[in-house]
Amino acid sequence: MVQCSPIDRTLAALADPTRRGVLERLARGSATITELAEPCGITLTGMKKHVRLLEDAGLVTTEKVGRVRRCSAGPRRLEDIEAWMESYRRMLDERLDRFGELLERTKGVPQ
Amino acid sequence: MVQCSPIDRTLAALADPTRRGVLERLARGSATITELAEPCGITLTGMKKHVRLLEDAGLVTTEKVGRVRRCSAGPRRLEDIEAWMESYRRMLDERLDRFGELLERTKGVPQ
Repeated sequence: MVQCSPIDRTLAALADPTRRGVLERLARGSATITELAEPCGITLTGMKKHVRLLEDAGLVTTEKVGRVRRCSAGPRRLEDIEAWMESYRRMLDERLDRFGELLERTKGVPQ
Repeated sequence: MVQCSPIDRTLAALADPTRRGVLERLARGSATITELAEPCGITLTGMKKHVRLLEDAGLVTTEKVGRVRRCSAGPRRLEDIEAWMESYRRMLDERLDRFGELLERTKGVPQ
């Protein structure tokens, strides 16, 4: 897909355990790229790439302070993803309910 | 990342509007690859790739009936993603609460 909507970018950004770990760390407070990279055992370059993807998705904001880039939890919330998942779950449940009703009705029909 | 856990695969599978559309369509009932491809205006080969990603994530099951592949909503539910998002939201909210408390306390301190 050429077009990439906010919800696509956010889901893709979340689809990686390192990036979800970064978000959990930043939810406790801001951190530098070095502080984020060290516990993961990955390079600064690798962590910068992860942070850039999270920043593009609005999940992280960064600020350069001197030679250090400080990262914080961004303004992006996950309501649209939660709403989509809730609506999908409801559709599946309704389908199961209809299937159940059909089974109930079939029971009453003489074979 | 070389390793790819179920939650990563599911989030990556959901990070595309065509694939989310396929899930919404299949929540209403099963469909063939052709029936899924036509309303999206994409090729059968393109749709097969989307379906394979959804199948790898357990979100879709497929069954070959003669020369036709029939797709249905799969057994995979989204509880683990919802749980992660809920936990992340709670962490952010707690941080905001702590920040609010700090502001309240600072108000009482003479400048």
